[in-house]
Amino acid sequence: MQLGLIGLGKMGGNMRERIRRAGHTVIGYDRNPELADVSSLAELVGKLEGPRVVWVMVPAGAATQGVIDELGDLLEPGDVVVDGGNSRWTDDEKHSEELAAKGIGFVDAGVSGGVWGLQNGYALMVGGDAEHIAKVQPVFDALKPEGDAGFVHAGKVGAGHFSKMVHNGIEYAMMQAYAEGWELLQAVDSVTDVREVFRSWQEGTVIRSWLLDLAVNALDEDEHLERLRGFAQDSGEGRWTVEAAIDNAVPLPAITASLFARFASRQDDSPQMKMIAALRNQFGGHAVESAK
Amino acid sequence: MQLGLIGLGKMGGNMRERIRRAGHTVIGYDRNPELADVSSLAELVGKLEGPRVVWVMVPAGAATQGVIDELGDLLEPGDVVVDGGNSRWTDDEKHSEELAAKGIGFVDAGVSGGVWGLQNGYALMVGGDAEHIAKVQPVFDALKPEGDAGFVHAGKVGAGHFSKMVHNGIEYAMMQAYAEGWELLQAVDSVTDVREVFRSWQEGTVIRSWLLDLAVNALDEDEHLERLRGFAQDSGEGRWTVEAAIDNAVPLPAITASLFARFASRQDDSPQMKMIAALRNQFGGHAVESAK
Amino acid sequence: MQLGLIGLGKMGGNMRERIRRAGHTVIGYDRNPELADVSSLAELVGKLEGPRVVWVMVPAGAATQGVIDELGDLLEPGDVVVDGGNSRWTDDEKHSEELAAKGIGFVDAGVSGGVWGLQNGYALMVGGDAEHIAKVQPVFDALKPEGDAGFVHAGKVGAGHFSKMVHNGIEYAMMQAYAEGWELLQAVDSVTDVREVFRSWQEGTVIRSWLLDLAVNALDEDEHLERLRGFAQDSGEGRWTVEAAIDNAVPLPAITASLFARFASRQDDSPQMKMIAALRNQFGGHAVESAK
Amino acid sequence: MQLGLIGLGKMGGNMRERIRRAGHTVIGYDRNPELADVSSLAELVGKLEGPRVVWVMVPAGAATQGVIDELGDLLEPGDVVVDGGNSRWTDDEKHSEELAAKGIGFVDAGVSGGVWGLQNGYALMVGGDAEHIAKVQPVFDALKPEGDAGFVHAGKVGAGHFSKMVHNGIEYAMMQAYAEGWELLQAVDSVTDVREVFRSWQEGTVIRSWLLDLAVNALDEDEHLERLRGFAQDSGEGRWTVEAAIDNAVPLPAITASLFARFASRQDDSPQMKMIAALRNQFGGHAVESAK
Repeated sequence: MQLGLIGLGKMGGNMRERIRRAGHTVIGYDRNPELADVSSLAELVGKLEGPRVVWVMVPAGAATQGVIDELGDLLEPGDVVVDGGNSRWTDDEKHSEELAAKGIGFVDAGVSGGVWGLQNGYALMVGGDAEHIAKVQPVFDALKPEGDAGFVHAGKVGAGHFSKMVHNGIEYAMMQAYAEGWELLQAVDSVTDVREVFRSWQEGTVIRSWLLDLAVNALDEDEHLERLRGFAQDSGEGRWTVEAAIDNAVPLPAITASLFARFASRQDDSPQMKMIAALRNQFGGHAVESAK
Repeated sequence: MQLGLIGLGKMGGNMRERIRRAGHTVIGYDRNPELADVSSLAELVGKLEGPRVVWVMVPAGAATQGVIDELGDLLEPGDVVVDGGNSRWTDDEKHSEELAAKGIGFVDAGVSGGVWGLQNGYALMVGGDAEHIAKVQPVFDALKPEGDAGFVHAGKVGAGHFSKMVHNGIEYAMMQAYAEGWELLQAVDSVTDVREVFRSWQEGTVIRSWLLDLAVNALDEDEHLERLRGFAQDSGEGRWTVEAAIDNAVPLPAITASLFARFASRQDDSPQMKMIAALRNQFGGHAVESAK
Repeated sequence: MQLGLIGLGKMGGNMRERIRRAGHTVIGYDRNPELADVSSLAELVGKLEGPRVVWVMVPAGAATQGVIDELGDLLEPGDVVVDGGNSRWTDDEKHSEELAAKGIGFVDAGVSGGVWGLQNGYALMVGGDAEHIAKVQPVFDALKPEGDAGFVHAGKVGAGHFSKMVHNGIEYAMMQAYAEGWELLQAVDSVTDVREVFRSWQEGTVIRSWLLDLAVNALDEDEHLERLRGFAQDSGEGRWTVEAAIDNAVPLPAITASLFARFASRQDDSPQMKMIAALRNQFGGHAVESAK
Repeated sequence: MQLGLIGLGKMGGNMRERIRRAGHTVIGYDRNPELADVSSLAELVGKLEGPRVVWVMVPAGAATQGVIDELGDLLEPGDVVVDGGNSRWTDDEKHSEELAAKGIGFVDAGVSGGVWGLQNGYALMVGGDAEHIAKVQPVFDALKPEGDAGFVHAGKVGAGHFSKMVHNGIEYAMMQAYAEGWELLQAVDSVTDVREVFRSWQEGTVIRSWLLDLAVNALDEDEHLERLRGFAQDSGEGRWTVEAAIDNAVPLPAITASLFARFASRQDDSPQMKMIAALRNQFGGHAVESAK
């Protein structure tokens, strides 16, 4: 089939390659003309035969909204837009309604796979109407890993991004779990080879996983992670997961602790701990450390 | 080689079977005569040729202490005792010293694998002197999974149980991560098939793991887990992990949150929430629910 | 001075009484005609001499929006609206702009005091322009407690509700602190009179506070809180506090833990703990409790 | 009455002064001869008429054990030892039994008050037999604040230190509550005067407390706490509180979060966050910060 693909960065570029390897035609657009197959969205739409499928793979928020607005003007009834970026699920219903008013279908697709996706395939969680999803299915089949898993029609519009968001929330807490364990093992004298302990866990244990394999890779490159600072960004989906939990009165203590640990890691000096130090000083004359 | 194995319950019995399949001789003792090959520890020791290796697989605490005391009287210099139970790592140094005073070696072995170990092998984390471990190595090789991983000499006496304890702490937080994600997905209307979302994650995602596979198995048996109560025991090693963290001033927010969630799950009515309700009532006249 | 007061429920009614005791004129409106001094907002506005000050004390969200919309049509340039309800701070800027377009001033006021406010005074945190606040100042002075504290011009529009929201977040964690301590004291045999321990803390300790006094009151009424269920509502401001923290990448572990403890208290059976039980069952054959 | 007082540091010295002001005789001993009234424990014991009361106010652990051992040899049946230091409650039963074997009574006393105690009085939580406590009561009455509160016979031996320990755990979470709120207020632009917001809370709010008063004092000295580093020690009792909770399967999420925040504040670089960064790098090629 034919696919229009908008956004050819690290993710989008690899996805184009994987879809092409499966025998489909991909016409790609990017603001960077060196990456693009066409020079405008209008040209991209013009080159696709109807009913068209256009996959949007640009940053969530204003960039995605801009592309969807423009596609709304260019596409025709019966066409389908897929948002494969990291949009917040609450945006999906809005986008779906805007396009539906023009007879255009909408599918939201959460995509997992990172730099390994080209080789291993991308896990896909999609939301929307079955008839719209059916038009994209050959592309989904090209992108997904081999095997039965790796693709799900999760539910209504928004369910794809919501499921991907929860995936990322779980990812935060799993990473935190290994990280806490690693720090504790490193902290005691009796355990003399923490890297080999991690390696041993790769078979036969309850905690074996792909993330554990990555941890072993990382320790093989830098046994004590001395080349890294203890500093972790977050990409939005962890935050949204906690916000969704709050909206639904669901307690998420481990995922939230993982998010907060990242926030704290980015502070050179903790304001809240200044207040703790100040209070200790007030009531107990405890020694405090002065700022330099 | 020959091995004396004490404790032939669910774990010990399967381990005896796996070691025998590898061609070794196992003489097993259990308080339950239907399970045992000999009728006493003295008989077990008498049947083994020196230097002997005796593996203790009984409940941590008093039971393990009792067996080790008795073995201290029965064994001879050059023999080695392996504690493969769930002993706290702080007990290992004591046991090691008691036995060393009699010329007997000691190895602590953390064992992971549960009911799947007979088939897949048991992951082993061991602590102690290399010369003692060498005497047990054929048994370790028989028990461990195929492949390079699944066995580690983690460090000094105690390092095996410490590593296994941390493994369990990580396990707590990983399970909590999936559990939180599952609850959140179940809580929203847009995601109409949570089980299939979990299944889709088994390939190509960052969070694929053996625990995820088990979660899918569980959902296949009971899609909404309606046949279970939200009630979770803990087995001691999660508690010890947090205590070790406190001893070493290591923050473990996600693992500790997971432990506390289990504690809370076992309370029919939360005393601390009674106090919250009482305070809300005092200052705001907020409606509270009366005990029935 | 004259004040129009809209919303004469538990809070608004007591506030009207306290303002009148200070010698001011209050014209009150409520949808319940038994509580109201006038029968409509139009009548209320008609009875006030310009420049008018109208205090809105109705539920946050749609109710507040509706009253502000109506006041925007009824009031005149130079008048001032005070939102003293529990509006989210993000609504304040919108309301301020809507009214400013008509020349009407806006002040947001967070009010603390609960059922004790009539007697002790209400703590007030206000946001907005100094010139608008100045028009309301006599009413603020009537409402606030005696002494230097109890009133602050916290900053721009929204700063009043934001400060009140953070006050409530702190309140959640303080209540949780006492509640956790109480549960732990109740859990051990050696402490035979927990209520008297709490009472003793009211003088000379680091943790003496008004909330502690309320806890002692509650224990005097019901020593073991047997007449209450461990079930706690939350009123929105704790949730908003966590959301504001996430927006600003500020870690709030204690406040968030307090919010999640309330969420969990309202679940008859914990879905996430069902998943924990299911996983334990899968890998270890651990005993689980069946749902009844 | 007469009191022997061992340990005349910051706390002990002020306590001697307060007891003397109440008209009692205090014979003080300290290893520092400049502070001491006598030159040895033997001389101290010799100067007291029987039945003697000796108050131990030295660091918990080895120092306290040493003094109690020596007193066991010097005192006579009918005498009473008070441990007013910060001993772990689990030590109290041991000390009580050792002394009881010699006919000597034992009382454990948790003391709160810090540098303010001389002036305001010390809150006292005591454990032990009523007959032993009765012998010390005049000293307790001298030390405690005026008013009804500030003293409690909490229960059996150990209950005094246990109650004081829980007091400190609550203190940790209350301090954390204010600290989190302060950081969040500081983080937003709309709140332009955070110090005045804190000051306003001192009257009429739900969160007014002595700790809040201290926070305002601290902010008056250093409005943005710029002279302090965000670095907080912990003194042992917070750790013991969490350990006691684990022993009793009591969830303490807010108190534990407060303890962990202090641990994290003391790390120049977080090992666990290095692992998070390493994993992000492995699966996503995310930018990480290199160690300098």
